[in-house]
Amino acid sequence: MTRTRSTFQSPITETFGWLEGVTHPANRPLILVSQAAPVAPPPPALREALADLILTNDSAHFYGPVLGLPALREELAAGCSRRYGGSVSRTQVCITSGCNQAFAAALASLTDQGDEVILPTPWYFNHKMWLDMTGVRAVPLPVQTDMLPDPDQAAALITDRTRAIVLVSPNNPTGAEYPAGLLRAFFDLARSRGLKLLVDETYRDFDSRDGAPHDLFTDPDWDDTLVHLYSFSKAYRLTGHRVGALVAAPDLLEEAEKFLDTVTICPAQIGQHAALWGLRNLGDWLAGERDEILARRGAIRDGFPALAARGWSLKGLGAYFAYVQHPFDIPSDQLAKSLVRNAGILALPATMFAPAGDAAGQRHLRIAFANLDRPGIGTLFDRLADVTA
Amino acid sequence: MTRTRSTFQSPITETFGWLEGVTHPANRPLILVSQAAPVAPPPPALREALADLILTNDSAHFYGPVLGLPALREELAAGCSRRYGGSVSRTQVCITSGCNQAFAAALASLTDQGDEVILPTPWYFNHKMWLDMTGVRAVPLPVQTDMLPDPDQAAALITDRTRAIVLVSPNNPTGAEYPAGLLRAFFDLARSRGLKLLVDETYRDFDSRDGAPHDLFTDPDWDDTLVHLYSFSKAYRLTGHRVGALVAAPDLLEEAEKFLDTVTICPAQIGQHAALWGLRNLGDWLAGERDEILARRGAIRDGFPALAARGWSLKGLGAYFAYVQHPFDIPSDQLAKSLVRNAGILALPATMFAPAGDAAGQRHLRIAFANLDRPGIGTLFDRLADVTA
Repeated sequence: MTRTRSTFQSPITETFGWLEGVTHPANRPLILVSQAAPVAPPPPALREALADLILTNDSAHFYGPVLGLPALREELAAGCSRRYGGSVSRTQVCITSGCNQAFAAALASLTDQGDEVILPTPWYFNHKMWLDMTGVRAVPLPVQTDMLPDPDQAAALITDRTRAIVLVSPNNPTGAEYPAGLLRAFFDLARSRGLKLLVDETYRDFDSRDGAPHDLFTDPDWDDTLVHLYSFSKAYRLTGHRVGALVAAPDLLEEAEKFLDTVTICPAQIGQHAALWGLRNLGDWLAGERDEILARRGAIRDGFPALAARGWSLKGLGAYFAYVQHPFDIPSDQLAKSLVRNAGILALPATMFAPAGDAAGQRHLRIAFANLDRPGIGTLFDRLADVTA
Repeated sequence: MTRTRSTFQSPITETFGWLEGVTHPANRPLILVSQAAPVAPPPPALREALADLILTNDSAHFYGPVLGLPALREELAAGCSRRYGGSVSRTQVCITSGCNQAFAAALASLTDQGDEVILPTPWYFNHKMWLDMTGVRAVPLPVQTDMLPDPDQAAALITDRTRAIVLVSPNNPTGAEYPAGLLRAFFDLARSRGLKLLVDETYRDFDSRDGAPHDLFTDPDWDDTLVHLYSFSKAYRLTGHRVGALVAAPDLLEEAEKFLDTVTICPAQIGQHAALWGLRNLGDWLAGERDEILARRGAIRDGFPALAARGWSLKGLGAYFAYVQHPFDIPSDQLAKSLVRNAGILALPATMFAPAGDAAGQRHLRIAFANLDRPGIGTLFDRLADVTA
């Protein structure tokens, strides 16, 4: 056995394999709702700023600090303080090569072989893969019918090897926006048991609720428990630049620095400058992006009754994702593969977000709808309504 | 214990800490010979190509394939085939976010908790840190007086937990260029014992020998044993863009893909395009860079007798590095700290490249001379000659 053999193939890679050899008729092009990634480039002004930087800023081509550009750490800290009404300083922020790496660095700082981490299921597959590859047991905490995890059930799963609880809100894959009170209850639980609470807020910029999504940063000692993960990829369309962030106690970041130095040395500089420019200049633009995503979310909700009439259920909806229950007597991975060929749709089966053999995984699909406009959502629903599997 | 607590602080981070609070007189500015990093940006034509790409190529802002841009994989494969006179295909090449990550991905594919990897000492500290953090024992193989490791000694260290032998040539920190015959002997040893031989050739573009540095790629089955690591950082001055490569068997890369997907998703796209542009356009320019480094290396050799007269010895010289033995009765880390304050020199002590308590580590310093021109090397030697520790 090796580290990588202890886990499964990347679902994104696997699904791209399903497309090989399949041709899609011109009047029925493939609908790609598998990946949560913008398919438009960043706005022109940001691109111009980067092009200028490439030409004029020598240091943008050199190694930077392991924990990221000081100006970006400062700007994100100030932004967190404003958004959450709390106090976050530069020394509590580090920049990473994407949000997956923020998760990996945090876990390297918190766990050892044989430790345990509690993850609500369905979970984000890259979290599960990283835990597998580092010898940490992912302890599944199945969500309730409202797609929310229960803190009391989590409490019952804590052992002397538990090191952290990981939440994702808005959630991937369900879209669920965790209520502030629920996040507070998990925070209190984690603190009372000496654990860390990791909250991955990659999709926070598309939360439908106005104002702060939780009050955890208002606790003056938040960093004894809270570890916040963020991504610049979706907000400013920077997926190809790899820039995320880890917000936590300075002593945790000092540990994370060893991992980050050894695995990448520093985040790519161009992406960091892009994120900084975005934070400083794209607030209004991002608000418009959010409005558009929320309108698409509305189109999913409005159009769903036509699918419900065919036996489908909408179980979760938010951020980039709809989480749907299908009406067929076949496992979701088998359905997802047949959808490529028979309906021209690539969506991820919930088996990819579930422990092996999990019954809920068999029944659901994740639809990453953010790249579909209202007509596109209509086409998607028409095709799904025709499926007879 | 956690993963990160099982290893030491990054030496580069630690030494930057030594500079805090120290002022350097205007007539004696700090000489920075601690880090192997170009201090000039890439050539203007490359910067212009990147600026144009940022403005005109939408896909350069999107996620790319986990294993890197197909065109870059193809180009590097062709380049390896030409340089080494062997056969390397695109499916045997993947791109990583720097060469450290290539090492990490290879090790994740080859090892598990409790396994062993043989590393010549002095070793590259990030290799040692990664092995510590993944629960793999770094088995030290002390080099001979010529700075070269002995395959017979390596053979005696192999156990049933050994998974690989790691060599760095040209070496960091000693600069030693491993003879082709020595690399072949290690390759034969590894193959005969069912191990992988990792050869980190980050500094290969500055090797003083003309032609292929080894013939391992000419073996039609090279990929059953050889794993080659490369970095674009030094060749095209792309340290801030994070782009390296892992060249190995396709099934190993398929395993590495799980790790790379989970830790960074894909290498930053701009850096990959920069590397591709460099491979296609900067061959002559790089030859000039190599000439300059070799001239500086010559200046180190020519100037060293003045230091030798004060008891210093030149133990290794090549690529970016001189590895020197100091004449003082204090450990090298203590000496290195005092050099910052008393001589205005930041160089790394060999304790950072050695197992704890290693006697050789106490006696040596690594001087990363690549950024010093001939007069700069003269100044460095003058200052060192004055040290009385």
